[in-house]
Amino acid sequence: MTGPRIIDGKAVAAEVRAEMAKKVAAIKSKHGQVPGLAVVLVGEDPASKVYVRNKGAQTVEVGMNSIEHKLSAETSQDELLALVDTLNKDPQVNGILVQLPLPKHIDAELVLNTIDPIKDVDGFHPVNVGRLWIGERALVPCTPTGSVILAKSVAPNLSGMDAVVVGRSNIVGKPMAALLLRENCTVTIAHSRTRDIENVVKKADLVVAAVGIPEFVRGDWIKPGAIVIDVGINRIEGPDGKGRLVGDVNFAEASKVAGAITPVPGGVGPMTIACLLKNTVEAFEMQTGLSADA
Amino acid sequence: MTGPRIIDGKAVAAEVRAEMAKKVAAIKSKHGQVPGLAVVLVGEDPASKVYVRNKGAQTVEVGMNSIEHKLSAETSQDELLALVDTLNKDPQVNGILVQLPLPKHIDAELVLNTIDPIKDVDGFHPVNVGRLWIGERALVPCTPTGSVILAKSVAPNLSGMDAVVVGRSNIVGKPMAALLLRENCTVTIAHSRTRDIENVVKKADLVVAAVGIPEFVRGDWIKPGAIVIDVGINRIEGPDGKGRLVGDVNFAEASKVAGAITPVPGGVGPMTIACLLKNTVEAFEMQTGLSADA
Repeated sequence: MTGPRIIDGKAVAAEVRAEMAKKVAAIKSKHGQVPGLAVVLVGEDPASKVYVRNKGAQTVEVGMNSIEHKLSAETSQDELLALVDTLNKDPQVNGILVQLPLPKHIDAELVLNTIDPIKDVDGFHPVNVGRLWIGERALVPCTPTGSVILAKSVAPNLSGMDAVVVGRSNIVGKPMAALLLRENCTVTIAHSRTRDIENVVKKADLVVAAVGIPEFVRGDWIKPGAIVIDVGINRIEGPDGKGRLVGDVNFAEASKVAGAITPVPGGVGPMTIACLLKNTVEAFEMQTGLSADA
Repeated sequence: MTGPRIIDGKAVAAEVRAEMAKKVAAIKSKHGQVPGLAVVLVGEDPASKVYVRNKGAQTVEVGMNSIEHKLSAETSQDELLALVDTLNKDPQVNGILVQLPLPKHIDAELVLNTIDPIKDVDGFHPVNVGRLWIGERALVPCTPTGSVILAKSVAPNLSGMDAVVVGRSNIVGKPMAALLLRENCTVTIAHSRTRDIENVVKKADLVVAAVGIPEFVRGDWIKPGAIVIDVGINRIEGPDGKGRLVGDVNFAEASKVAGAITPVPGGVGPMTIACLLKNTVEAFEMQTGLSADA
């Protein structure tokens, strides 16, 4: 028996980025325009600074314009809303991303809902959430989009599969369910109130874990041969006292049973920024009516 | 062994209407205002005319204002959009319902999306769909809302139940899933591509059938003691050549196994208008900031 296929998120993300670089080049040569992504960072959160730097670097790498607004932690809510409003009106800006978390004196929901839905590359605005569920053209959250791409990298046709999404967050669990339904999976959403969760997971051909609990899903919960997509990124302390990253799935156990599985790190993580670039191109096409193809 | 509990939709709907009549009376006495529901009917579809008449009658019965706009089948899309715009701006109108189906020369999606989301008592606007899934205050489609009320009439606490929704329409299946998730059910959405649907349904403590296929769900698909909510209303021809109404569940079979079940007619059907009145009161409260309670 051969081991399970380890899904290489870095490699798939590189493919998505290469595809976007091609699209951006085609848009530039055909229409003389370049899509632009604006990222707004408020305050000095170290993890957020790293994310923003990576987003900016990858945006430029695929040939798009990156616009970074770094604001002091003392920025008022009104100032931030005014900036969002300016970006909404700026035709050079096709995507707007406000990095979370925001300082406590700012109402994050209000800020996110102020972003023009057609520039909402995070896909968190109620209009995009609604369009996703209705089946209209929408900007869809990046992490679930990336997770579907990874699943399809090992099983191009998900139709008819029993999929179980563990977790029901607005950012991952729920949009994941919408996307898997669109792929014609039979979708079950499990969560903290689910009874006998082991057996719910055990019937799944496709498991997506997004609960934020380190190694929550055990190996004996996995149906042999199932595809396992692990969205969790948790820092835990190893026996040697050193920190290390683990997912929401016990990888050592599950990788003995699964047909294919994403590692942490190097699985879903790298897909998120790649899908953000994808959304920015999509937003450009929706706003301008132009396309890389024609 | 006693038979299953037959859930009396007429009686529960009457309770909801009585509750709304109380609320409307309280709003009138405390704030001197009366919520208003505008219904727009285009053309002469006989079934639609009956629905609109019933909606108007029940609106008035609970003490609200009913505003009916009956337009000729030749009404242009622009004329209809202009009417919706007028109703959006009219402070006497708290709810707007455009009766479907619309004549073919009119883009129904465009018309529905033109209704101000805060007056969208059908709950079909993307903004309301998005808010429902995010967990924000929203106007929620009437039939799923009524279905949840019926389920809770026999099992007040649905938390932890395995719920299976058969059907994934925008009007019933998907919002039903959102509402059951909010009730902390483990929710599975099954549909035409679902493999082995009998066994998917068979694990459910709560089954909601909304596929539009007469008597699709059979008795031996039902787990003994399960709650069965039948959203279907199909007219079929009986052996005597007479038409009769049946649901999406084979009632004769399923009622022998279920713990509780809704009949057709007299189950979910009567709840829909009752929940429309509920939404109109909710819309009034959202728009004015006034409440029946304070």
